Amino acid sequence: MTPETRTRVLDALRRQHVELPSWAFGNSGTRFKVFPQEGVPRTPQEKIADAATVHRFTGVAPSVALHIPWDKVDDYTALSAYAASEGVALGAINSNVFQDNDYKLGSVTNPDAGVRRKATDHLLECVSIMDATGSRDLKLWFSDGTNYPGQDSIRGRQDRLAAALSEVYDRLGDEQRMLLEYKLFEPAFYTTDVPDWGTAYAHCVRLGEKAQVVIDTGHHAPGTNIEFIVAFLLREGKLGAFDFNSRFYADDDLMVGAADPFQLFRIMFEIVQVGALDPDYGIAFMLDQCHNIEAKIPAVIRSVMNVQEATAKALLVDVEALTSAQESGDVLDANAVLMDAYDTDVRPLLRDLREDMGLDPEPLKAYARSGYAEKIRADRVGGEQAGWGA
Amino acid sequence: MTPETRTRVLDALRRQHVELPSWAFGNSGTRFKVFPQEGVPRTPQEKIADAATVHRFTGVAPSVALHIPWDKVDDYTALSAYAASEGVALGAINSNVFQDNDYKLGSVTNPDAGVRRKATDHLLECVSIMDATGSRDLKLWFSDGTNYPGQDSIRGRQDRLAAALSEVYDRLGDEQRMLLEYKLFEPAFYTTDVPDWGTAYAHCVRLGEKAQVVIDTGHHAPGTNIEFIVAFLLREGKLGAFDFNSRFYADDDLMVGAADPFQLFRIMFEIVQVGALDPDYGIAFMLDQCHNIEAKIPAVIRSVMNVQEATAKALLVDVEALTSAQESGDVLDANAVLMDAYDTDVRPLLRDLREDMGLDPEPLKAYARSGYAEKIRADRVGGEQAGWGA
Amino acid sequence: MTPETRTRVLDALRRQHVELPSWAFGNSGTRFKVFPQEGVPRTPQEKIADAATVHRFTGVAPSVALHIPWDKVDDYTALSAYAASEGVALGAINSNVFQDNDYKLGSVTNPDAGVRRKATDHLLECVSIMDATGSRDLKLWFSDGTNYPGQDSIRGRQDRLAAALSEVYDRLGDEQRMLLEYKLFEPAFYTTDVPDWGTAYAHCVRLGEKAQVVIDTGHHAPGTNIEFIVAFLLREGKLGAFDFNSRFYADDDLMVGAADPFQLFRIMFEIVQVGALDPDYGIAFMLDQCHNIEAKIPAVIRSVMNVQEATAKALLVDVEALTSAQESGDVLDANAVLMDAYDTDVRPLLRDLREDMGLDPEPLKAYARSGYAEKIRADRVGGEQAGWGA
Amino acid sequence: MTPETRTRVLDALRRQHVELPSWAFGNSGTRFKVFPQEGVPRTPQEKIADAATVHRFTGVAPSVALHIPWDKVDDYTALSAYAASEGVALGAINSNVFQDNDYKLGSVTNPDAGVRRKATDHLLECVSIMDATGSRDLKLWFSDGTNYPGQDSIRGRQDRLAAALSEVYDRLGDEQRMLLEYKLFEPAFYTTDVPDWGTAYAHCVRLGEKAQVVIDTGHHAPGTNIEFIVAFLLREGKLGAFDFNSRFYADDDLMVGAADPFQLFRIMFEIVQVGALDPDYGIAFMLDQCHNIEAKIPAVIRSVMNVQEATAKALLVDVEALTSAQESGDVLDANAVLMDAYDTDVRPLLRDLREDMGLDPEPLKAYARSGYAEKIRADRVGGEQAGWGA
Repeated sequence: MTPETRTRVLDALRRQHVELPSWAFGNSGTRFKVFPQEGVPRTPQEKIADAATVHRFTGVAPSVALHIPWDKVDDYTALSAYAASEGVALGAINSNVFQDNDYKLGSVTNPDAGVRRKATDHLLECVSIMDATGSRDLKLWFSDGTNYPGQDSIRGRQDRLAAALSEVYDRLGDEQRMLLEYKLFEPAFYTTDVPDWGTAYAHCVRLGEKAQVVIDTGHHAPGTNIEFIVAFLLREGKLGAFDFNSRFYADDDLMVGAADPFQLFRIMFEIVQVGALDPDYGIAFMLDQCHNIEAKIPAVIRSVMNVQEATAKALLVDVEALTSAQESGDVLDANAVLMDAYDTDVRPLLRDLREDMGLDPEPLKAYARSGYAEKIRADRVGGEQAGWGA
Repeated sequence: MTPETRTRVLDALRRQHVELPSWAFGNSGTRFKVFPQEGVPRTPQEKIADAATVHRFTGVAPSVALHIPWDKVDDYTALSAYAASEGVALGAINSNVFQDNDYKLGSVTNPDAGVRRKATDHLLECVSIMDATGSRDLKLWFSDGTNYPGQDSIRGRQDRLAAALSEVYDRLGDEQRMLLEYKLFEPAFYTTDVPDWGTAYAHCVRLGEKAQVVIDTGHHAPGTNIEFIVAFLLREGKLGAFDFNSRFYADDDLMVGAADPFQLFRIMFEIVQVGALDPDYGIAFMLDQCHNIEAKIPAVIRSVMNVQEATAKALLVDVEALTSAQESGDVLDANAVLMDAYDTDVRPLLRDLREDMGLDPEPLKAYARSGYAEKIRADRVGGEQAGWGA
Repeated sequence: MTPETRTRVLDALRRQHVELPSWAFGNSGTRFKVFPQEGVPRTPQEKIADAATVHRFTGVAPSVALHIPWDKVDDYTALSAYAASEGVALGAINSNVFQDNDYKLGSVTNPDAGVRRKATDHLLECVSIMDATGSRDLKLWFSDGTNYPGQDSIRGRQDRLAAALSEVYDRLGDEQRMLLEYKLFEPAFYTTDVPDWGTAYAHCVRLGEKAQVVIDTGHHAPGTNIEFIVAFLLREGKLGAFDFNSRFYADDDLMVGAADPFQLFRIMFEIVQVGALDPDYGIAFMLDQCHNIEAKIPAVIRSVMNVQEATAKALLVDVEALTSAQESGDVLDANAVLMDAYDTDVRPLLRDLREDMGLDPEPLKAYARSGYAEKIRADRVGGEQAGWGA
Repeated sequence: MTPETRTRVLDALRRQHVELPSWAFGNSGTRFKVFPQEGVPRTPQEKIADAATVHRFTGVAPSVALHIPWDKVDDYTALSAYAASEGVALGAINSNVFQDNDYKLGSVTNPDAGVRRKATDHLLECVSIMDATGSRDLKLWFSDGTNYPGQDSIRGRQDRLAAALSEVYDRLGDEQRMLLEYKLFEPAFYTTDVPDWGTAYAHCVRLGEKAQVVIDTGHHAPGTNIEFIVAFLLREGKLGAFDFNSRFYADDDLMVGAADPFQLFRIMFEIVQVGALDPDYGIAFMLDQCHNIEAKIPAVIRSVMNVQEATAKALLVDVEALTSAQESGDVLDANAVLMDAYDTDVRPLLRDLREDMGLDPEPLKAYARSGYAEKIRADRVGGEQAGWGA
C-alpha cells in the first residue's frame, strides 16, 4: 500500500457513517420464541444510550434511527437533545403500519378505506415527527400483501399504494426524503405489495426526486445479485439507503457480513467506485438486524466493524489495474485484482484508524472492559423491556 | 369412470384419515404480529371441540394431535374421554423444546449438559403422556441449530442429538413410535441440526424400526422434489408421517394445497400407488398449518377437502395406461395419463362420498349454517386465547 | 355456467393467439447432450411447415417467430409467402448475439467496441428483416453478463447496453416494437446485464413507447411471483410479450403448464381481467420451449392446449363474486372463488370450441392419425437437422 | 502465529493433494455456446501434460482424473506411464453414461433393459480400466432422471439404480472404491435419480464400505448448508470425495472459491478438524470445473491456490479458543475465533510454503513467464480439440 493509498483509504474510512437502529438493542426473536436478555433498554432514551455507546467505541456510528410507535415519546425535541447530549443524532424515522389489529389484511393497501386512512395518517404523523427531530429520511416498509391466490386484487392494491405514497410524498418538506423499502416475502406469503427493487423503483420514479429506494440486504430471492441492484440504482440516481444485515436463507437479519463477507465487499465496492460512501452523497447506510441469541451491544459493534472491514477492502481495490484488465478482456486478471483487495487483512489498518481517531483499536475488548454491560444489567431491572411488541 | 373404479376410489376415500393439530385452532402469526381472532379456544378441550367440529363436517378427520406443553392437562385420561365424547381420538403427541428460556442455544443439542437433560426429560414426559392418552406417535421437531459460523460444533451437536434420541427411543413402548421431523431453517439461521430428510433418515436407521421420518411439506429448500422423498422413504420403509401445509417461499404454513395443488396431487399419487393411504399402512397424515389471517375452523375444513381432492385425483390415475406408456418410453403419453387424472373435476365425486357417509355434500356451507362460529364467538369471551405462547 | 358466460368464454378462446417459435421444432438439449430426433426440420421452411401443422390441429397458433441467424434466408418475402401458403404468418424476429466466437465476453456490452458494433449491426439487420417479413416485434434477449466478480464493470456494461438499445430503437419503424427480455442467469453465472424485470422496465421506460418488456416464465429466481410482475407491467403499460414455458428449477424450458399449471392459470387470470388476451391489446403470447426428450410437434400441440386450458379457467372466474369477497375481506371466500374456476374441468368446453371451429376435438389424437409424423420421418432424411448450432 | 502453529500448518499444507480433472483443460460451455480456446488439448496425453504443468507450478496437484470415454485410449498402462513421466499419477476414473443416444431416457435407470445393460457394462468397463491404471476410485455421476411428472416411476427407477450399483460394487477389487455423486437437477428437470446426499448415502450404506458419497459443491438447492453435509458424512464415515467448483446460481462450475470463499473455508474447516485433509484419510479432493471463458491452465492454477488458501485459513483456527467459547455458549466469541482465522491473509504463508517446496512463490506469474501457453498455442494446431462431445 503506497502512502497515498493509505491516506486516501483512511480519509474515506474516517468520514464513514453507519446509522444504528434503535430496535437492535431491544428484544427480538422469531415467531417461535423471543429470548429476553438482561440489560435490554426499556425506553427510547435507553436505546439511544446504547447506540451512543456503540458510537463511543467505533467512532463511525453517530446517528440512531427511530421506529414509530416503538420509540414514541411526547417530546421529540427533548429526545433529540438527549441524543445530542449522548453524542449522537437522531436519524431516519421508520414507520410501522403492521402491528395494529386493523392491519390484518394490509395497511395502505387494505381493501377497507378506513384502514387505509388510518395507515396513511400514521405515515403523515411520522413526517411531523421528522419535523421535530430534524430527520431527513422517512423510511417506509410495508408488510402489506396477501397469503392466498385470489385474496385481493394485485392491481387494485398497487393503485391504493400509489395513492398513499403520493399523499405522503406531497407532505414532505424540501429537505426531507421518502425511502421506500422492498421485500420478497414475510409476513405476507403469496403476494407482497412491494416485493422487489423494480416495484420500489417504479413508484419512486413516479413520485419524484425525493423518493428513493432502500436496499435491505436480506430481502431478496435466492440467487439475487445485490451488487448489480446497487450499481443499477446508483446509475439511475435512485439509491437512497441500505438496511444492512446478512442471511443464509430468508430475512434472517443476522449481523451484516456474517453470512457472506465477500458479498458485502462487492456491494461496498460498487459504492466506493462512484464516491457514494461520502455522507454528502446522500446514501444512508443503516443497520437493520436482530440479535436474537447474541449479546446486543457487542453484536452491533461487531456489525459496524464488519462494514468497516468490507469498506476498507473495497477502497483498496487497484481500480487502474482493474479497469485495464477489464478493458483488455482478461477475465482472470480482473478477478485477481479484485480478490487481491479482498484477501488483504485490513484489521491492522483499522486499528490504526481508530488510534488516529482517539479510540481504542479493539472496540469489542474496550467495550468489554468498560463495565457498561454490567451497569445496564444492574440498572435496568423492572419496567418493560423494549421489543417489537410496541 | 367405470363403476369398478368409482367403487375403488370411494372405498379408499371413505377410509382416509387426516389428523388435525390442536394448535391450528389457536392464534398464530409471524414474528411481526399475531392477529387474534374472536372465538379462539382457551383450553385444550375447546381446541378438541373445534377439531371435532371439523370432523363432524368432513368425516375424515377423526383424531387430534396434541402439543405439549400447549395442551398440558392434569388428567390425560379425562382429556381422552372428553375427545371420545366429542367423536374424535387423541393422536400424536408433539413435544416442544423450543420455548423455554433455557433453549436459547438449543435443547437436546445444547452445549450445556443441564439443558440437554431438561430437554430430554421433557421428551420422556411426552412418552408418559402417550401412555396415558394411548397415542401411538411421538413427534419430534427440534428448533436446534446455530445462527453463526463457529457458534458450535456441527459434529458435536450430532453426537448430542443421537444420545438424546437413543435415550427416548429406548423408553418407547412396543406399540409406540418416534417420528423425527426435519426442517431446512427457522428459527436457526445458519445450521439446523436436523435440516433435511437424509439427516432424519440416518438417525432413524440407527435407532431402529420404531423411528420414522416425518415430511413437513413446507420444510425444504427451493426446488426440492418432495414426491421423490416420499417415494424414496416409502421404498425404504421409513416414512412415518406427513405434516401437511403449503408454501410459496419458506415455511409459510398456508393451507395444504393452496400454493401448489399439483404438487399435492403428485405426493398423494406416490402414496396411493403403494397402498399407503390406508390407515393400516401406518402413515399419519397430519395437518400442521397457521391460519394467521383466515378464519380457523373453515380453513381447516378447506384443508381437509384439499387433501381429499388431491387424493381422489391420485386414485383416478389409470395406472395400467401409465405403466404401459412409461415402459414404452412415451414421455408425452405417460405425462398425459397423469394429467388426465389431475384435470378431472373430482368435486362431484366427493359430494357423493359425503352424502354416502351421511354428511352434507358441502362442508363449508354446512359449517357456515351450523351456527358454531357464532356460538364460540359468543361463548369464548374472557380467559386467555390459546396460541404458541404457552 | 350460464349461456352468457359460455358465449363470452368461447368468444375469447376463439380469438386467442399463441405464437410458435420456429426453433421448438429443431433439436435442442443441455450442455451434456443433444438427443437428435427423426423427422426434425432441416430448413426454415420445414420448421414453418411444422408450426403450420400445429396450427392446423389447434386453430389458435397462426404465427411463427423466427430466430436469426438460425432462420436466415435470402428472400424473406418468399419465406413470408411460403408461410402464408401454409396458413400461418411470420411473427416476431428474435435476434441472436450469443453464438459467434466474438461474443465470449458479451455482445452489445462487450468491453471491445468492435464487437459491440458487430452485435448492434446484427440487431439493425433484424429490423431490416422485419421490414421484409412485416413483423411487428423485435425480440431481444442478451446472454451478456460476467462469470467472475471483477470481470467487468457492472455500470459500464449498462452504459453500453443503453447505447445499443437506443440506436436500435431509433431504427424501428412506426409500427414496429422492441421487446426486451430479462433472465436471471445462464449462460452468464455472476452478473447478467438484464437480469430482472426491473432492469428491462427501466431501459424500456427510457427508450419510449415502442419498447416493452418480455416475460419468459422460466427466467426468475426461486420464489418469484410471476403474476405480480404481469399485473404490475400491465398497470404500467409495459408488458409486450410472454415467452411461455415451465420449470421446476432454473430455465428448464419444459412445456408450458407442465410444472405448475396453477401458476399458469394465475398468470392468465391477470391477463383476462384487463382484457389483455385480445390480440388487439398488443401482447404477444409466444412459446419458447425445448423439447429435449419428447416428440416435438405433439409437445407443441400439448403446450398450446395447456395455455388454452389455463385461459379457459381464468375466463371462468366469477369476477363479481371475487370482487365482493375481496372487498369484504373474506380471505377464504375470495380464494374459493378463484379455486372454483381452477378446479373446473374445461376440457369438454375446449372440445366444443374446436368442433365449433371445424377442428377435431382431440388435437393430439388427430395429429397422431394424420400420418404427418411418419411422413416427415420418411422425407427428412439427409441434410443437416436444425438445432441451436446455426 | 506461534512457531508450532506455523510448523503444523505448513506440514499439513505440504501434504495436501488436489486432484485435477482431465476435462477441465478441454473446451466447455453452456447449451448456448462453447467458445473454443487456442492451445486446447486434442488427446488424453495433452490433457495430462497440462495437468502436470499445473502440478509443476503448485506442487500439490499430483494426480489427474480421467473421464471415459473422453479419455479412452487403447493402452492404459502406457497412459499411466506417460503420466508418471510427466510427474503425475492417474486418479479417479469417471464414468460417462449420458452422451450416447441410447441414454435419452436414462442409463442404469432407463425403462429399457437393454439400455440398462449397456450402461452397466460401461461401468464395469471402467472398473477394468481402473485395474489397468491402478486407480482406486470409480466416480459415478448419473444424469438419469425425468423431465415430466408421470414420465417414469420414481420408485421403479430406484430399483433399477440399486441393481446396477450392486452389480458394479461386486466387481470392485479389494482396494477399489465406488464414489457416488448426487445432483439436484440438470440435465433432468423434474426428477433426478440421485438428487441429494441422502439418496447417495442410503445407497452407499446398503452397498457396503467401499461405497462412498461424493460432494460436488455446485449440486445443491439454494440455501443448502454444505459444511453440514460434510460434517455429517464424515461422522458417518461415508464421505469419499469432493468435486470442487463454485456457483452463484445452479451448477455453474466456476473456479472453486470464486463465488463464496467463506463457504469454502467453512467446508475445509470441517475437514481439518477431524484430520481428513491427510491423503491417508482417504478423501479425494478433486476439482470439477468448466473454464468457459477464462484461460484454462491459469484457471486451474488459481483454483488450486484458492483451495490452498481456504485450507490454510482453516488450519489457523484456534481450536482451543473456539471450543472454549462454544462450550461456554458465547456466540459472538466463538464466531470471532473462526473469523479471526478467515480474516487472516495467508498468502505470505503460502508463498513461504512454495519456496520451501522449491517452487516459485507466485505460481500464476511463473506460469505466465514459462512460455508454456505460447508453446501449446503454437503446437496444438489441427486435430480435434478435446471437449465434452467425445
